[in-house]
Amino acid sequence: MAIEDRLDALEARLQAAEDQLAIIRLLSTYGPAVDSGSSREGAALWTEDGVYDVGGMRRAEGHDAIAALYDSQGHRELIFRGSAHLTATPRITVTGDTAEAVGYSFVMLRSHKGWYVWRASANRWTLTRTPDGWRIVERYNRPVDGSEDSHATLRHGAK
Amino acid sequence: MAIEDRLDALEARLQAAEDQLAIIRLLSTYGPAVDSGSSREGAALWTEDGVYDVGGMRRAEGHDAIAALYDSQGHRELIFRGSAHLTATPRITVTGDTAEAVGYSFVMLRSHKGWYVWRASANRWTLTRTPDGWRIVERYNRPVDGSEDSHATLRHGAK
Amino acid sequence: MAIEDRLDALEARLQAAEDQLAIIRLLSTYGPAVDSGSSREGAALWTEDGVYDVGGMRRAEGHDAIAALYDSQGHRELIFRGSAHLTATPRITVTGDTAEAVGYSFVMLRSHKGWYVWRASANRWTLTRTPDGWRIVERYNRPVDGSEDSHATLRHGAK
Repeated sequence: MAIEDRLDALEARLQAAEDQLAIIRLLSTYGPAVDSGSSREGAALWTEDGVYDVGGMRRAEGHDAIAALYDSQGHRELIFRGSAHLTATPRITVTGDTAEAVGYSFVMLRSHKGWYVWRASANRWTLTRTPDGWRIVERYNRPVDGSEDSHATLRHGAK
Repeated sequence: MAIEDRLDALEARLQAAEDQLAIIRLLSTYGPAVDSGSSREGAALWTEDGVYDVGGMRRAEGHDAIAALYDSQGHRELIFRGSAHLTATPRITVTGDTAEAVGYSFVMLRSHKGWYVWRASANRWTLTRTPDGWRIVERYNRPVDGSEDSHATLRHGAK
Repeated sequence: MAIEDRLDALEARLQAAEDQLAIIRLLSTYGPAVDSGSSREGAALWTEDGVYDVGGMRRAEGHDAIAALYDSQGHRELIFRGSAHLTATPRITVTGDTAEAVGYSFVMLRSHKGWYVWRASANRWTLTRTPDGWRIVERYNRPVDGSEDSHATLRHGAK
């Protein structure tokens, strides 16, 4: 292969690897942000009109609405009790400037005698490349409760 | 270094990074597949004659036998109750066209009052590069129960 | 761009991706090491004078002191009961030859009727590049207990 072609191929392949790592990093920022009261930083993981569709709770749209979730009385009770919003490394599929990630998240909560799994969720994130890096367009989140909705969410990650 | 040599070195290093990411992605597909009833997709993570050696349960060999685990009555009870088969990002070592991954997996299960850790396992995956990407040759899985067998499994990841 | 410049850029970008993967791998070695009684291998993830500041327990400095934590009676009781020291993939920021990682770790412990979350922690690792690869300079670890100390630890990962 000609040198130019090898460079082109390397640049494209490296971009794909960087995209996966950038999305892993973006989603790994979520817990530290929302468990430390950094509500704006948590919301800023989404695009400006991004959507967080939280099963069984509500659908928040845009930075203000998403940050309001983390500023709510309910969320603040969690973080002052001691919460770990764990996003497990999901299965990521990048297609040009958009991406999909499918996987689990858990909220571990402190009780008087240790910690327990307060919530286990199935998630499908759709993401987009922006001038500032990857951002979440929508996070569709459903509790792992055996429902068709939760199964359908996960099925996106099995194809 | 000459341009050709730099290109050769870049291609080899990038391949190594891509291999790690591909194996992380393969193993991250497991949970979404088996928790959503996508039994064939779950089995297809293995080579055609791949082995899933599930400690305390059985040893399944080949796609049909592995898919049968996920189609079993016991497994279906888990997924309709609400299960999260979490594969934590393992410690991956790639050597040419084979690889080893060592790490933990957990099954989080819904109960009437939340979720709990139904199973915690030590795993050693051996993997191979195929024309269709990385596949599992063997997944050796043992419950985290203090046994020498579980310790020996993890010790592979400590070297 | 000239060929030399493209090669330079590729080498720098690839190095950054490799660094992230190397740190993920280093931290993924922790659990398999300390849960299998491989105390020296666990301590060797730190630099020779590295620090493990374990909230509510002690501050261990250097390989001998860190290995002593894993050889202690208390730790050995955990691993013979069945423990999984899970390091979730953290949020990693590499700056030249140093790096920071912020995220969660969990100890899952076997009881007579399954497993439970024995400890959930917030962590901030500072790391350095050595001739032998990345090593931990300090691991600052605090239980997820709603304290300002735990929140401040996580806040490093939200910026």
